[in-house]
Amino acid sequence: MVDIDVVGFDADDTLWHNENLFSLTQESFRQLLAEYGPTEDIATRLTQTELNNLKHFGYGVKGFTLSMIETALELTDNRIDAKQIKRMIELGKEMLSAPVELLDHVEKTITTLALKHRLMLVTKGDLFDQESKLARSGLGPFFSGVEIVSEKNPATYTAILKRNGIAPERFFMVGNSMKSDVIPVLDIGGWAAHVPYRITWVHEQVSDYENETHRFFKLQNIGECIDLLGS
Amino acid sequence: MVDIDVVGFDADDTLWHNENLFSLTQESFRQLLAEYGPTEDIATRLTQTELNNLKHFGYGVKGFTLSMIETALELTDNRIDAKQIKRMIELGKEMLSAPVELLDHVEKTITTLALKHRLMLVTKGDLFDQESKLARSGLGPFFSGVEIVSEKNPATYTAILKRNGIAPERFFMVGNSMKSDVIPVLDIGGWAAHVPYRITWVHEQVSDYENETHRFFKLQNIGECIDLLGS
Repeated sequence: MVDIDVVGFDADDTLWHNENLFSLTQESFRQLLAEYGPTEDIATRLTQTELNNLKHFGYGVKGFTLSMIETALELTDNRIDAKQIKRMIELGKEMLSAPVELLDHVEKTITTLALKHRLMLVTKGDLFDQESKLARSGLGPFFSGVEIVSEKNPATYTAILKRNGIAPERFFMVGNSMKSDVIPVLDIGGWAAHVPYRITWVHEQVSDYENETHRFFKLQNIGECIDLLGS
Repeated sequence: MVDIDVVGFDADDTLWHNENLFSLTQESFRQLLAEYGPTEDIATRLTQTELNNLKHFGYGVKGFTLSMIETALELTDNRIDAKQIKRMIELGKEMLSAPVELLDHVEKTITTLALKHRLMLVTKGDLFDQESKLARSGLGPFFSGVEIVSEKNPATYTAILKRNGIAPERFFMVGNSMKSDVIPVLDIGGWAAHVPYRITWVHEQVSDYENETHRFFKLQNIGECIDLLGS
């Protein structure tokens, strides 16, 4: 068992499903565009627009919705019907108000660990969106705070820990992204567990990371955190 | 002179111009729609859409851009040309990358106060957007932190002060909104100065607030903070 004070959790695709909501919306988007021509590279084009727009929009549903509209205009050479654009805005709003579906083992893990540790949500993206999801998830009362960062890197983790008076060696981060949740935390001397999600967004993929530190754990599911941290 | 440790500043329309950027974009939006019919109630309809969408989108340029598109679809009964929708997305991107124009007296006020106090940005809305503006403003090095909240109320100010180890009676908040920057801070025992901006968004307007506390200051411009806090 690891001796720590504060456990940080990534939110999207660590505590609750998120990418599957994007995937479902992408499928609706593909169907909306089907009548305008071949659909095979619609997903690729949308991803490309999203990546190009990251510098303007950052992460989140609102930027994704704008990217859908922009992609539709480009792919149809501005022939897209206005009604379909209206439908894309509706798809964005549906994503923003969709029920929050917890992943397996999350509820038990959070309620157990909260008895022993201070829990903190550490997530990228839109504060409004993430606070709303935490509230809808029912897990709000178990978390002492929500930390939103525009990028997860060693500097932003250092700032969070400093601001909250937490020593890195007493901090344990849990998340589905090696790049955002694991590597930067190990780099500053903290502990981290990687819990893979079945879809990894292309922007988040990193090549295999060989880490020999005893502060790194590769888990199959988040429930394994209970043995690691909760007993 | 007031004896405090940390000075919090609102960002938009307190340190730099923001509403004027929205106003200019609204004017472009009005012109885009001019060919579809009378333009007199376009601004009203856009504001109404924005208010209706706050629960979905929160604050910020991305939500505003989606509201422009939605309003255009409604006002033209879906007759709007796709090219004009493309132009609205461009308007949004232009807002997000526009130069940050500091208000009068801001540079001198911030550089002077930073010699004596810890300065903190406390703002609503989109972290990505606000961090980018702070960096572009050139004021980043004078601020010890950026706190983004989804709403500014007594509970969120209490959480910020607690997290940063600041006693309310040692905290001074400066901003252009009575509702968001002044009243909640006075309510929790802090100090606050109101610096009016020439445009107040309809959502932010509150009726006259009579406050008799010695912890409240009504200033003409932000430069008056120097005498109050910096000497």
